[in-house]
Amino acid sequence: MLPLEGILVLEFCQYMAGPSAGLKLTDLGARVIKIERPKFGEEGRQINIKNLFIDDSSLLFHALNRNKESYTANLKDEEDLINVKKLIQKANVMTHNFRPGVMETLGLDYKTIKVLNPKIIYATITGYGTIGPWAKKPGQDLLAQSISGVTYLTGDKEDPPTPMGLAVADIFSGTHLTQGILAGLIRSTQTGKGALIEVSLLESMIDLQFEGITTYLNGDKYKPTRARNGNAHAFLSAPYGVYKTNDGFLVIALASIKDLGEALGSKAFTKYKNQKTWFEKKDDIMELINNCLIKENSSYWIEKLEAKGIVCEEVFNLEQLIHHEGYQILNFDQVLTLTNGEKIHTTRCPIRINENKIFSTEGAPRVGEHTDQIAKEFNL
Amino acid sequence: MLPLEGILVLEFCQYMAGPSAGLKLTDLGARVIKIERPKFGEEGRQINIKNLFIDDSSLLFHALNRNKESYTANLKDEEDLINVKKLIQKANVMTHNFRPGVMETLGLDYKTIKVLNPKIIYATITGYGTIGPWAKKPGQDLLAQSISGVTYLTGDKEDPPTPMGLAVADIFSGTHLTQGILAGLIRSTQTGKGALIEVSLLESMIDLQFEGITTYLNGDKYKPTRARNGNAHAFLSAPYGVYKTNDGFLVIALASIKDLGEALGSKAFTKYKNQKTWFEKKDDIMELINNCLIKENSSYWIEKLEAKGIVCEEVFNLEQLIHHEGYQILNFDQVLTLTNGEKIHTTRCPIRINENKIFSTEGAPRVGEHTDQIAKEFNL
Repeated sequence: MLPLEGILVLEFCQYMAGPSAGLKLTDLGARVIKIERPKFGEEGRQINIKNLFIDDSSLLFHALNRNKESYTANLKDEEDLINVKKLIQKANVMTHNFRPGVMETLGLDYKTIKVLNPKIIYATITGYGTIGPWAKKPGQDLLAQSISGVTYLTGDKEDPPTPMGLAVADIFSGTHLTQGILAGLIRSTQTGKGALIEVSLLESMIDLQFEGITTYLNGDKYKPTRARNGNAHAFLSAPYGVYKTNDGFLVIALASIKDLGEALGSKAFTKYKNQKTWFEKKDDIMELINNCLIKENSSYWIEKLEAKGIVCEEVFNLEQLIHHEGYQILNFDQVLTLTNGEKIHTTRCPIRINENKIFSTEGAPRVGEHTDQIAKEFNL
Repeated sequence: MLPLEGILVLEFCQYMAGPSAGLKLTDLGARVIKIERPKFGEEGRQINIKNLFIDDSSLLFHALNRNKESYTANLKDEEDLINVKKLIQKANVMTHNFRPGVMETLGLDYKTIKVLNPKIIYATITGYGTIGPWAKKPGQDLLAQSISGVTYLTGDKEDPPTPMGLAVADIFSGTHLTQGILAGLIRSTQTGKGALIEVSLLESMIDLQFEGITTYLNGDKYKPTRARNGNAHAFLSAPYGVYKTNDGFLVIALASIKDLGEALGSKAFTKYKNQKTWFEKKDDIMELINNCLIKENSSYWIEKLEAKGIVCEEVFNLEQLIHHEGYQILNFDQVLTLTNGEKIHTTRCPIRINENKIFSTEGAPRVGEHTDQIAKEFNL
């Protein structure tokens, strides 16, 4: 039995952040019904990833919305709205990621809804919160990254600002929404009281940088300093970084500079005895390491370094990962069957429960695929 | 009332991933007791971030362990172990991030513990799962990133592999552990049954890339292609990326190339009518955009682009963010008082509940600060 069996979630969400929270809830056993506009469904169905579409929706949509149901309603239509409110009365959770003000106009804001269903967990994701100069801006991953300062933590010193190459603000705010929903459910089960849970892309990106921001706020306004070459963390000492070898790349995480010098067979490191210099002379030390590592292959160095207890590893790309025994043993791939019978491969839920991996079999629904069935079930 | 009030968590964790889960649980109202080795406490107290230490522990440790209690025990000492097991019998949750095998040797593995406390949620983070070639490797953020393939998604085409410049594997696996724990608590409250929750750094990094991996697995083995300049997402079309202007940088997320050409006052874009070319000719289109944007200041272009409904924004660094009205209105800073009376600034919990932001006042505990008090309270 999955832990959230019996929990009913209504998802008034589009694109990635909100649906990623719904995905985790369905993976953990909840029943998630997407409330979509008739005909076109939610906007995320049309996100173009490498021009890949299957059964009229994007591949990304199928991955994000597996195992959910679709109920169509025009929220501006009075009759449809009555039915949606009947569903809301039966739900444990509802989520939305409309811009501030939209749900108020529709009469589906928390103040109205909690009268209908006092136990409901009402959860929303905005771009930047509900007040302030950015509140009305489109809530979008790259914008949240660019505002948040995070682009100056990644890449090397002279590089332009470098975003993380995936939708980290969407995904991370989705995990925060899920946490808030689950905590709210724990309380609601015990007390009968619902809750309003709010997160935003920007606040999640700030939270992701709690380490850097805390350092900045307390350390005489320490600014993050990316390494000259091979930067992996703007606030950590050498040798933390990426290095080129004769046939590839490796990372070194933690090591004493003395051990490192010995493993590399170089006396040049002996002058960095004082641990403070490992931060202050980071670029110089990293250059010395580079000068050694470039001379031999990765496997040669990994053996030398690990013999000294130095924490290091080769760098793989996606293809190398997927073909590696270490990936295959995790059993991460799952196959979903779509409504039209086509099958797609995607990744499973990363949380294991009682030694069981959680797999799904159903792809994302077509627009309105479950409308009639849900209407019957709930007497709409 | 915070949602997790009344929940008792024992944290047998060190460094970042495990403690970050405990941090979210205490932020949401749980009582979190760190079980630490006598004298030195957990390893994370000594993580050196920019050489900043306060009251004998690192600044990062204070930020990650605020509002927790510390109980010291030598887990290899029989008497201490008896007391720890008494605590476990009273706990709702226990977490650890020891390497596979360590808790078995101590007799604190799930099989043993569930006999003592059948309702407990027993949650663990490993580096790479419990089996396979990587199971015995040190579970470390940069290693998990380097194995996961994610370093080839960030940065530009000719750049070396580029890690995300913060501990994303630690933090993201911490959010997954929290999700599993909370879902487990929901079920445990209803059924009286506990659960074993397992996540790993590597699986969380794979999950973070679900979009890219799904594309790779279904699209004739599509390899991620970083843009030549200004890459922000290896699987999305132009104009998605970072651009240099005359006085800084801006990002453009979503736009039709036609609208963009008009906003930039250039006819060079008219040949990219077919939307498929926006992906296939991404580098050429991005270069054309760059050639225009470099001629004027960011504010000039933001106005032009937004007038066309193009989703774009200036790029800020941490300092610009923190001094911006949009950050200050979020009220993200909080001040913690440490045991020695010193105060530090850090960020608050990113989840808001019933329109309330969650603030703490207490810093992290000293090693064993609450041992006597807890011994008394639980009759140890």
